Amino acid sequence: MTTATIPPKRGFSPAEFEQRVARAQQIMHRHRLDAVFVTTPPNVRYFTGFDSQFWESPTRPWFVVVPLEGRPIAVIPEIGAPEMARTWVADIRTWPAPVPADDGLSLLRSALQSLPARFGRVGAELGREMTLRMPVIDFLALRDGLGSEIVDGSPAIWEMRLIKTDAEIAHIAYICGIASDAYEALTGQLSIGENEREAVRKLRIDIARRGADATPFMPGISGPGGVPQIVCGPHDRTLEEGDILFIDTGSTYDGYFCDFDRNYAIGRIGDEAARVHEALWLATEAGIAAAVPGATTDDIWRAMNGIIENAGAIGNNVGRLGHGLGLQLTEPPSHRPGDGTVIAENMVLTIEPGMEYAPGKMIVHEENIVVTADGPRLLTTRAPREMPVIR
Amino acid sequence: MTTATIPPKRGFSPAEFEQRVARAQQIMHRHRLDAVFVTTPPNVRYFTGFDSQFWESPTRPWFVVVPLEGRPIAVIPEIGAPEMARTWVADIRTWPAPVPADDGLSLLRSALQSLPARFGRVGAELGREMTLRMPVIDFLALRDGLGSEIVDGSPAIWEMRLIKTDAEIAHIAYICGIASDAYEALTGQLSIGENEREAVRKLRIDIARRGADATPFMPGISGPGGVPQIVCGPHDRTLEEGDILFIDTGSTYDGYFCDFDRNYAIGRIGDEAARVHEALWLATEAGIAAAVPGATTDDIWRAMNGIIENAGAIGNNVGRLGHGLGLQLTEPPSHRPGDGTVIAENMVLTIEPGMEYAPGKMIVHEENIVVTADGPRLLTTRAPREMPVIR
Repeated sequence: MTTATIPPKRGFSPAEFEQRVARAQQIMHRHRLDAVFVTTPPNVRYFTGFDSQFWESPTRPWFVVVPLEGRPIAVIPEIGAPEMARTWVADIRTWPAPVPADDGLSLLRSALQSLPARFGRVGAELGREMTLRMPVIDFLALRDGLGSEIVDGSPAIWEMRLIKTDAEIAHIAYICGIASDAYEALTGQLSIGENEREAVRKLRIDIARRGADATPFMPGISGPGGVPQIVCGPHDRTLEEGDILFIDTGSTYDGYFCDFDRNYAIGRIGDEAARVHEALWLATEAGIAAAVPGATTDDIWRAMNGIIENAGAIGNNVGRLGHGLGLQLTEPPSHRPGDGTVIAENMVLTIEPGMEYAPGKMIVHEENIVVTADGPRLLTTRAPREMPVIR
Repeated sequence: MTTATIPPKRGFSPAEFEQRVARAQQIMHRHRLDAVFVTTPPNVRYFTGFDSQFWESPTRPWFVVVPLEGRPIAVIPEIGAPEMARTWVADIRTWPAPVPADDGLSLLRSALQSLPARFGRVGAELGREMTLRMPVIDFLALRDGLGSEIVDGSPAIWEMRLIKTDAEIAHIAYICGIASDAYEALTGQLSIGENEREAVRKLRIDIARRGADATPFMPGISGPGGVPQIVCGPHDRTLEEGDILFIDTGSTYDGYFCDFDRNYAIGRIGDEAARVHEALWLATEAGIAAAVPGATTDDIWRAMNGIIENAGAIGNNVGRLGHGLGLQLTEPPSHRPGDGTVIAENMVLTIEPGMEYAPGKMIVHEENIVVTADGPRLLTTRAPREMPVIR
């Protein structure tokens, strides 16, 4: 089945960015912030549309200030100015980086100090599931000389990004479709006796051919009846009769991620592995069904966890049963007890039940969904109830 | 010409890690540090060999403590324990992340507090060209309650990584060879009328086929006689007669990067562009020749800059004329005035002269070299003196 058809238009309209910033400013009001400043690829891209792979170079910091009123201000290295000028951002301030003695710091400081100080608080990426992409010594110097207090802006920023726009959802749906098709085609490309690395390379190339921009995440692991972990590999291990091959991918289209896995039976797997696989398939059904507006992430966790426990789980080193996704492979919330996030329309989530059923034997399922007013809608092609077989 | 032949063995021997840590500990002595703790993919990998693409998920912090005496201590989420157990690290401490209330912080604190406090100082990734990959609010809490002072460990850490081992150099040479071959083959795969995105996709797939693990960086830009910038793209722009197509790549093998570009003439380029291209080819020769033990990064810059100025440069928004590379796309030092790094054996460097010769028209060359006792040795296949042509 081919799900990936017409790619959505790349980028987003100025109207969409205006809408994102207007919503962000409402949230900033509630969090009593005069501005947030962001430094990381997904947050810079969210507010500006700026797209680059140059984040791989750790040499230069980049800053975007989103004020409580008005439009974003980009404070960036000269090397990025021509491309930033193609975005909707009009106020672009640059310095000839790298300049170790003052890499954008005084420019950022004056941009922040020029804003009205209504609350006397500026938010930055200081908290959960965020990294501040600038030297900490520079951050401390900025903080001490600023006047306004710099506080943890991550709760506000995650609140902004948690609810996706329709255009964002179309992007995620497209990359989910590409990866779904490639996963389905893999059974015809692999044989017993090839190794994990070859499996991952074939899938990586096929996903690129089908229109993905990049594949930042593709672990592939195999083991008899299950795998010891799900975030590293591939290794050189050869696929043998009775193995399960697990592959996960975060591939991207225009900056947006899919994040889901598939399991393949290498020849005939044992009855116990098949039984656990069936339980996880049912747990996935239950997790998807529970993802309705008004439920909580705890409810989603509970719907899956009951089935997993009954199936004889001895553990799950993942620490949760799914999470948000979008401009990043994983985003808040987490389906785990105590998370307490209320599910709302236009959240994009993974449903990811997994369990270790014997020492070193894990099986993990994963699908991606969007929450609509009518309930959950799959973005991935649902994994087959019986594990596809590689011979 | 095929340069990429036998892939070097993946990973490094325990003896190599012992040697890295012994050298690191000498440097720590000189910097008066009782330990460094690291949080980022390249630094964790440098000391442990731990390989994962799971860093794409921002949810969980990871820590590795390198003490002044003894072996590294990994303080990591449970999800990573099975893979860390495959490395040479023996002391692995885990917690069931994500646990927002205490994501590894108390474990890290007790690991640091258990070490002898000889200098009362612990180094962390706080400075130039480094990011601390943990919530800043957690870092501040750690700092305030630790006892020892946490200081900027980045000068010490960069000193450790600046000089590569022979095994590291073999890794970089291999990926440079793969990318060199793929760049050469691209002229046969592209035609006038295709667009930037297709060019980049073809090169990306070919590099994967030839044995690269990943291509985290591949900007591709085109323009009449030159390009406006070199770090973003590809876009949908169609390649037309008289254009220069610029492609750069940081692809990886077993964690190690190449970082070099190539320029292609689309049909016949103008005389002025050809003249600038020739000057930059000669500047590259001069830059390579200047990279000898005992010279400085300033000397390398000067050797290139004279030629560039004479050729009529009106600017260069890159801010330097090359840099280090290894586990990251760019690493210190920088070839720029005032950098002052003394070139030494087993440094791996880019030689990257570039110039804007008319508004919006940049041309940039780049090669990768290793410094040996006998002088510089190319890791890339030297770009042809005349620009290869796509018809």
